Amino acid sequence: MDILDIIDKKEKVEILSKEELNYVVKGYLDGTIKDYQMSALLTEIDLLGLTDEETINLTDIMLHSGEVLDLGFENIADKHSTGGVGDKTTIVLAPLVASLGVKVAKMSGRGLGHTGGTIDKLESIEGFKTSMSLDEFKKQVEDINIALVGQMGNLVPADKKIYALRDVTGTVDSIPLIASSIMSKKLASGAQNIVIDLKVGSGALVDNLEEARKLADLMVKIGKKYNRKVACVLTNMDEPLGLSIGNSLEVLEAIDTLNGKGPKDLEKLVIKLGALMVSMTLNIDEKEAENKVIENLYNHKGYEKMLNWVKAQGGDIKNIKIAKNTKVIKSKEEGYIKSINALEIGKLSRKLGAGRLTKDDEIDLTVGIVLNHKVGDYVSKDEPLAAIIYNEKEITEEEFLSCYSFSKEKIEKPKLIIDIIR
Amino acid sequence: MDILDIIDKKEKVEILSKEELNYVVKGYLDGTIKDYQMSALLTEIDLLGLTDEETINLTDIMLHSGEVLDLGFENIADKHSTGGVGDKTTIVLAPLVASLGVKVAKMSGRGLGHTGGTIDKLESIEGFKTSMSLDEFKKQVEDINIALVGQMGNLVPADKKIYALRDVTGTVDSIPLIASSIMSKKLASGAQNIVIDLKVGSGALVDNLEEARKLADLMVKIGKKYNRKVACVLTNMDEPLGLSIGNSLEVLEAIDTLNGKGPKDLEKLVIKLGALMVSMTLNIDEKEAENKVIENLYNHKGYEKMLNWVKAQGGDIKNIKIAKNTKVIKSKEEGYIKSINALEIGKLSRKLGAGRLTKDDEIDLTVGIVLNHKVGDYVSKDEPLAAIIYNEKEITEEEFLSCYSFSKEKIEKPKLIIDIIR
Repeated sequence: MDILDIIDKKEKVEILSKEELNYVVKGYLDGTIKDYQMSALLTEIDLLGLTDEETINLTDIMLHSGEVLDLGFENIADKHSTGGVGDKTTIVLAPLVASLGVKVAKMSGRGLGHTGGTIDKLESIEGFKTSMSLDEFKKQVEDINIALVGQMGNLVPADKKIYALRDVTGTVDSIPLIASSIMSKKLASGAQNIVIDLKVGSGALVDNLEEARKLADLMVKIGKKYNRKVACVLTNMDEPLGLSIGNSLEVLEAIDTLNGKGPKDLEKLVIKLGALMVSMTLNIDEKEAENKVIENLYNHKGYEKMLNWVKAQGGDIKNIKIAKNTKVIKSKEEGYIKSINALEIGKLSRKLGAGRLTKDDEIDLTVGIVLNHKVGDYVSKDEPLAAIIYNEKEITEEEFLSCYSFSKEKIEKPKLIIDIIR
Repeated sequence: MDILDIIDKKEKVEILSKEELNYVVKGYLDGTIKDYQMSALLTEIDLLGLTDEETINLTDIMLHSGEVLDLGFENIADKHSTGGVGDKTTIVLAPLVASLGVKVAKMSGRGLGHTGGTIDKLESIEGFKTSMSLDEFKKQVEDINIALVGQMGNLVPADKKIYALRDVTGTVDSIPLIASSIMSKKLASGAQNIVIDLKVGSGALVDNLEEARKLADLMVKIGKKYNRKVACVLTNMDEPLGLSIGNSLEVLEAIDTLNGKGPKDLEKLVIKLGALMVSMTLNIDEKEAENKVIENLYNHKGYEKMLNWVKAQGGDIKNIKIAKNTKVIKSKEEGYIKSINALEIGKLSRKLGAGRLTKDDEIDLTVGIVLNHKVGDYVSKDEPLAAIIYNEKEITEEEFLSCYSFSKEKIEKPKLIIDIIR
């Protein structure tokens, strides 16, 4: 067996055996298969797909590439987002459901595409530690119901390495690779109840509904193989989520949201995902769960949980740095905002330094974009549309405005939650 | 413009502009585009193709990525092989046509797939230098009509880097990438008359005739853009060429052939390619050219030219090392040899160490396989089929025999020269 044969075989759209997939994953981990060879195979998979069986096998191999956790908790849930522009949901949701007795022992990733991942975002809180030992992790979940770290060294090392490569080779948007990546991580971390926020639209990995349904079905199918409850919430990602894009800016918006002062779309999403997590985990009715979530959002219990959590991980929530320079972009048109291209906004925020282009890029946690308006809002000429928060790297007014389109006719606010697949 | 956008664009089978292709090639050369990103794009091109215009643009960009030579010679010709198993043709052909007054100023590559390239093979001659300065190169061609070196540092650096990557990422078999690679090198080296030995079959980059014709047409088309004479000879590569496979073993066979004692298929190919080169370059009739080639093959003038040439490049033809261990493989069957799978024989020789699997692999110049028979030959049970010449790395009798099939019925010798496209 050698990697060039396997690349050739996949080029001919032949099915790779579990043995071959195992050879690939092990070889990539031990370095006998090089980055550029893995990239070739991943690109083939991106273009040609994998069968469900290949995907299930790949997931199983990745899952067993490292330690598989059983934290021993009941009432444990996990949430995953396929990643959208401005997606700070986890930072709101995790403490909120933890405040309701759901245990959240979460491992999260770094930058996926245009902006940082949850871990990057949390690192913009001064002192916040995103790594700890397994014992510390368990103890923190036991004590305060919540802990959130980067991938631990011994959990799904295969996904860690492959994910970093996909991120910089244009292979993040492959349905079977997304499914196996997400599910291997969730399974290895011991989650029993899994809620997946599957973003659909121009700013998401998956930009059409058909592909999104395929991905959701595939993940539910994989979950069933391992006897886990999985719910996939398909949500709109044509415009950015909330108003802030960029690592520290998103943490600030998350804090606002836990204080009942967040953007409505973000709040709505948090309530729906929270209701599912609470209902699945505590085995209560979904409506009842939703009421509990709303209650703890407005009585600040979620926010108090966040304070506990940040403190437990060494962070100081009062110390979140943002970049010094601000440029306000004003509208040159008058009318209803018809679209805000999330993908392009994401790219611009990466251009400011908020995301990574290659594996080794450092990101600037302090920069980003704060929108004043969302799709459906009416704006006058010269009304501020957004503020660009930047350091050395800049973007032009023209670049920013090209992300918008306007309409004289009234525009409906887009529907955020499209479907739930379980 | 960024590489991830370009990868995404090609994924959607959109046409890349010359500007975008230029960005890719320049970025890969200066290191801002990484191996694994280039590998992703090359894999997309391998699977999805390029338009003729994209290919011509890519060729032009590669051609101008370094110095473009004009050696100032008249009567200059070049020959290129798309690479087959056991292909030592250049080592016979170059001195042979040089002995007839054709100037051969040739740059050649290293290992392509399963066995070493011409440069690797020549390095199995003790002392043979495969690099020299441009002035030395020119002077040698002036003095003795022939010089052969590896790619010079300043010529088509883009191809050098991309070719090395393709070699180890399963993207050597892409028609547009082959065309742009070959033609950019030939154009940059200043060749006016170009004969291309385009191998077709199981042991070749191109395994079907339709693809081969496409490639030939494309190269002739590119040549015309630059006002060069190009002839593509489509030759069969289902079984290995000649009898020896492996670097030093192939040099020994080339020497035999220049002494009129070579395998008939190799000799036939040398005569046809030589006739084309001589006829195109000296502007004489092809039949007359063929007669001259045959004459110099049997009057040893080609061999004398080889001796001069090897000496001029510092080599000692009496010192060609071969590995110490020999294992003779005997036939377990009786009958006509129906097929000898060139691809599998190539892989086995790589397994012995004669070829590269990753860019950094060292190859063992002394190992390989010497066949006793070719397709169409009759063999008795227990008759020796081949000798395996090896060091540490071995192959089994079973592996070797699986490359063969036999028939009780008489088998015709395969037709070596399929077509000539110009």
